[in-house]
Formats: sequence, C-alpha cells, structure tokens
Amino acid sequence: MIQVVLLGSGNVATHLYQAFQKTSEVEVIQVFTRNQSLDFPSTIQVHSYNQLIPADVYIISVTDLAIAEVSKSIPFENQLVVHTSGTSALDVLDTKNRRGVFYPLQTFSKVKKVDFSEIPLCLETEFEEDYAIIEKMALSISKVVQSVSSDQRKALHVAAVFSCNFVNHLYQIGSEICEENNIPFSILFPLIKETAAKIETLTPIEAQTGPAIRRDEKTISKHLDFLQDKNQKEIYQLLTQSIQNVKKL
Amino acid sequence: MIQVVLLGSGNVATHLYQAFQKTSEVEVIQVFTRNQSLDFPSTIQVHSYNQLIPADVYIISVTDLAIAEVSKSIPFENQLVVHTSGTSALDVLDTKNRRGVFYPLQTFSKVKKVDFSEIPLCLETEFEEDYAIIEKMALSISKVVQSVSSDQRKALHVAAVFSCNFVNHLYQIGSEICEENNIPFSILFPLIKETAAKIETLTPIEAQTGPAIRRDEKTISKHLDFLQDKNQKEIYQLLTQSIQNVKKL
Repeated sequence: MIQVVLLGSGNVATHLYQAFQKTSEVEVIQVFTRNQSLDFPSTIQVHSYNQLIPADVYIISVTDLAIAEVSKSIPFENQLVVHTSGTSALDVLDTKNRRGVFYPLQTFSKVKKVDFSEIPLCLETEFEEDYAIIEKMALSISKVVQSVSSDQRKALHVAAVFSCNFVNHLYQIGSEICEENNIPFSILFPLIKETAAKIETLTPIEAQTGPAIRRDEKTISKHLDFLQDKNQKEIYQLLTQSIQNVKKL
Repeated sequence: MIQVVLLGSGNVATHLYQAFQKTSEVEVIQVFTRNQSLDFPSTIQVHSYNQLIPADVYIISVTDLAIAEVSKSIPFENQLVVHTSGTSALDVLDTKNRRGVFYPLQTFSKVKKVDFSEIPLCLETEFEEDYAIIEKMALSISKVVQSVSSDQRKALHVAAVFSCNFVNHLYQIGSEICEENNIPFSILFPLIKETAAKIETLTPIEAQTGPAIRRDEKTISKHLDFLQDKNQKEIYQLLTQSIQNVKKL
C-alpha cells in the first residue's frame, strides 16, 4: 500500500483523492489545504506544513506559480515529491527531495464527474528507482500510463493547444457562421463528434476530407468569396494551404 | 405511405434505403442503378430511365456533377424530385419537376453502420406545399430535421469546413508534434473527445481554454520558440491572435 500526502484542494487534487478512494493500493493519509475544505474528510486535513507526516509520496497539486514554494515548505528531505502540472518542468520542485511528475492529461471541472480510468497519466521521475512507485500508483487508477520527460511534456502541451484549444476556436468560427445565417450550430454536432471519433481508427492524414485535400479550387474560391470576415478568410487560406502541403507518407 | 424512387447506388443511397426499411411511413418502390447492385433487392432495381414508375418522391443521390443530367433524364413532369447533396443548390435540378433538397449532414462510408436517427436532415423545397411531404419522410428516419435554404446550406458547408475538415488538420499537426517527440498521439484522444463533447453544454466561447485566451504571453512565446516548422508557427500565431480578438458577448 502506497501512502500518499496530497497538497492542494483544487480540481485535480479533488479528483485524484476520489480516484484513490477506489483502489486498495494507495492510501491518502493526509491532505494539506490552506483552509478547511468540504471535499476531504476533516480528520485527515492539515493547514500548516509542520503538521505534515512521513509518507511514500507527496503529491503537490496547486497552481503552477505556487509549486516551487510548496515544495520548499515540505519539512522533510530525500522524500519522493511529485507535482501534477502539464506546463511545469520537473525542476521547479525543490532539490532537497527526490522529484517527479504525475500529470493527468485532461481538463477537469469540479462539478463534472470524470472516469479516471480513461485519463492518460504522464509520469516522470528524477531517479529511475522512483518510477516504479508512481507507476504503481498510476496503474491503480488509470489504464493509460505513459513515461513522458519534461521536454516531451512541453511538446505534448503544444500538441494539445493545436488539437484542443485551437480546435475549440474553429468550433467557435463554425458557430459564428451558423448564427449569422440563422442555422442552429447544434446541427453540426454529429459531424463534429464523428470527426473526433474517426482519428481513433484512421490517422488524421487518412481521415482528411473536404475541398482543400480534394484540391477543389472551385469550391475553395466560392468559400473565400462567401467569407466577409478578414480574419476568417485568412485562417481559411492558411489552413487550406497547410492541408495541401502535407506530405503523404 | 410515401412512395419513393431512389436514383443512385452510392453511400448515401444505400444508407437511406436501409433507414427507410425501418419505417412504415416510406416505401422504396424502385431503385435506379447504373449496374446491378448487391445493396438493393434485384426485384426493385432498374437500369434505364424509361423503366421508372410513378412515385410521390424521386430522390437523386449521385455525385454532384451528375445531378443535373439524372434530373433531366426522369421521364416525368411536375413530380417532386429532390437531391441529397450539401454542396449543390436546389436549382441544379431540372425545372420540369417540383424541386427540393433532402441533405443528410454526415460523412458516410459504406462499411460503417450509421444511426440515422441522430443525423440532421436539412430540407428545402421549391414549393411550400411539398415541404410537408419531405418533412414527413425525414421525421420517419431522423430526430433532427431542419429547414435549410440553398444560401444557408452554402454557409453550413463553410462552417463544416472550419469545424470538421480544418479541425482534422489540427489533429494532424498535433499528431506530427507527438510523433517527432516519441509520444503516442493516442494520449491526446481523451482530451480531443472531451473538447468535442464540451460544446454540447457550453458555447465555444465559454469552453475556450489555453494560453491564448488567458493571454499567457510567457507560454505563448515558449511555444513559438518550440515550433520549428514555419507553417505550424504561422498557424499558431494566427489562431492565437484570432482567439484574443473574439468579442465576448
């Protein structure tokens, strides 16, 4: 049984705590919170660093800017301390402890229940011997566990910006065009869902459809004529060009 | 009972035929195919226009370029004739008949079964009296039926290019970045699915996350430094700018 102290009371900390409740391989023995929180039993909550007790792993799940300070404040040395951030490197953690990262790759909101078993956990440790510990912890709550270095995590974050943040903005443009033409945006939902589902069985290159990849210049110029917004027109042109430049493997 | 003659043997024709088999409100009395097809009973197939019989609705489901010719070849006048294309206007159909559009907004492939009840059907008719007929036909196979004019359908197609074709290309860029850094692209699937699912309960503006909307210039410039591909850098900059320009309502 891996004994864990959780530091933080945000979305990730709360969801992690709930996930660990369902496994017999991990026991959360203490939760450090700034103020009393209703999301954890009061019996295991502490609010000052000198109350922290010995544990196998300390999981720091706070905002990026606070990670360094919280890691400094842990009153122990040579302990295994991990953070849960996708954007912070391993080395923001204080060097007095053995460092690692335990990063769940998903957006969390407190109100929505998540199925942790489907959430990829990206792991990294400073010392090889520590990897097995957090891997065991990860496999007890998720089916998808992956070793990801700090450099890879940086790349992963950029990939996620393209595949999720920018994708959402294209939904936004689609919804604007629908609204301006009195079409409910919801009419596109089945197509949007199918587009997201398709890449689980086809590579994005194989799944690519539309006027750009068909080099249907007639439709492309009709669409460019249709678009009045300068910004939308620019995005249409740049992405069309980019689709046509992809080298088929 | 609406009696239908189907003209065409492609993906849409096949899926429509199967959907109509499940309703008692529509009877497909004949299928016009160029050559004998295994997807329809041989007893109702014909291969020459002069064998066509009277019906309530003729559904032309062929490639865009062939619609005009097929509609000319129907040896009747003043019949209700619709096509199933998202990119062709109503007026590609020959004027000798009453014209309409019956457009299922989804990508079809012959091998994959589709649940027609979830597919939005976009309807248009030249004459108001005909709308009720194809609306009844549509509601017998789908829960989502929407009146969409030729102009609106054009807008819808542009919106679909942004929300689906361009989205898939951003998946492609995400997958390239992952592969170059030895990360399995599949690690992003849960996040991609969640991004697509979120807009069913939040507007895309509300759902927008990431460094651009946070105006996190430090992360943005880190990402731009990371991106070596000129094209990817340009897309990153343009979409970041575009996200920051969205006027909050």
